[in-house]
Amino acid sequence: MRWARFDQNGTATFAIVEGDDLVPVRGSPFATWERTGGKRKLADVKLLIPFEPDTFYACGLNYPEHVREVAAKTGQEPKFPPNPDIGYRANNALIAQNEPIVIPKDATDKVQYEGELVAIIGRKCKHLTRDDALSAVLGYTIGNDVSERTWQRGDRTLWRAKNTDTFKPMGPWIETDLDLESLITKVRLNGQQMIEFHTNHMIFGVVDFLVAMTRYLTLYPGDMVWMGTEGATADMKHGDVCEIEISSIGTLHNPVVRET
Amino acid sequence: MRWARFDQNGTATFAIVEGDDLVPVRGSPFATWERTGGKRKLADVKLLIPFEPDTFYACGLNYPEHVREVAAKTGQEPKFPPNPDIGYRANNALIAQNEPIVIPKDATDKVQYEGELVAIIGRKCKHLTRDDALSAVLGYTIGNDVSERTWQRGDRTLWRAKNTDTFKPMGPWIETDLDLESLITKVRLNGQQMIEFHTNHMIFGVVDFLVAMTRYLTLYPGDMVWMGTEGATADMKHGDVCEIEISSIGTLHNPVVRET
Repeated sequence: MRWARFDQNGTATFAIVEGDDLVPVRGSPFATWERTGGKRKLADVKLLIPFEPDTFYACGLNYPEHVREVAAKTGQEPKFPPNPDIGYRANNALIAQNEPIVIPKDATDKVQYEGELVAIIGRKCKHLTRDDALSAVLGYTIGNDVSERTWQRGDRTLWRAKNTDTFKPMGPWIETDLDLESLITKVRLNGQQMIEFHTNHMIFGVVDFLVAMTRYLTLYPGDMVWMGTEGATADMKHGDVCEIEISSIGTLHNPVVRET
Repeated sequence: MRWARFDQNGTATFAIVEGDDLVPVRGSPFATWERTGGKRKLADVKLLIPFEPDTFYACGLNYPEHVREVAAKTGQEPKFPPNPDIGYRANNALIAQNEPIVIPKDATDKVQYEGELVAIIGRKCKHLTRDDALSAVLGYTIGNDVSERTWQRGDRTLWRAKNTDTFKPMGPWIETDLDLESLITKVRLNGQQMIEFHTNHMIFGVVDFLVAMTRYLTLYPGDMVWMGTEGATADMKHGDVCEIEISSIGTLHNPVVRET
């Protein structure tokens, strides 16, 4: 099942995606809902970020080739994280399908995409086990963890490198039924494929993180975990279009503009 | 003006603190509100965290003696942050006035308080200037940035060191009218004063952070910024009571228990 959210005469409304159609609902996938009338064509609506997240968790370094690439760029030995230690991002930076990534005037040219799987928590939970961890996940969407590399290396925290307004495209919708092991992520810049990788070939998978996190933290419906990206990333510049496709979910599409 | 929030027959309700009384309102200090009947004695209600925050920002190292203490403990030269680079904490960890700080079974004895001023954002804002930054602040409350020092030093991120459930006491209420420069913070453990410092003697003040942050980030009503702590901190153990007093605001009071 696919859950989108769209602007219905100024009101954010959840809807079920059925082929090229959107069926609006009363309620929310995080609680109770019922179908309503007013079916729309997907092509005719403005999609919003598929939900308003609560806490925004992010894995950071979580794929082997990405760890090697980051190390190579800083001239260091690759250092694989020994434990699933989660990090954080911020909701101010979220934008929806088709909305522009805006590079601030004073950013360098090192503004790069990172294509990521996003796991969305559907129920309040603590002390998840390996057996029940995935039952706490409502579904999955796609995230682009846009990063200004100069700030990322120079600042004491990741605040503006990762959380400048518009640096976190997310969407286009939530897919509730998929087989994690079968997923393939592809990133395209201006139509050209930049990388393709097995989405689930993470250093620590969704289950690893949810079990580790909920040993100490309560997770709530609407919390989300961005699972990290693989391999090298490249610069995006004014006029580019960045697309991140994850099979079984869809394609997150965002243009890039530089502030003048 | 003082804004508290309390449990009114199962409903979280904002109220104005007037001496020893609470005057419930309809609405919220972040939008519109009006007084209602049903005045209560403060002593008779269960206070909640004074609001449900949106993004939880935290300054980290932001007082000179605290920077020196941290450096001394790790045998390094003190390194003063050159810029107001903001960090993040997580809402799962928040607890209210009088609620217990619960030390997990497997935590070490190095679980310590940090008494902090909390600035609460009252309106949507970007590109704040030094002149208008404080006008975006609805008011101030008190936070205890409880930290497990072993995890803080050993983990790749601050996730469980700082964000384990119950590690972020906040309250007792929001004070909207105060003179930042006059504030004094005192931390007491079991009634014994551990430290006293000028709240506003920060490396970067509230204005510095809000101006720097909003150059890149939009802040929203309900976002908050924890401003850091001064000096050395000490271990808290089962049975202790930690109190953080900031003049003109009040006293945040929490017992400590260790999970068995």
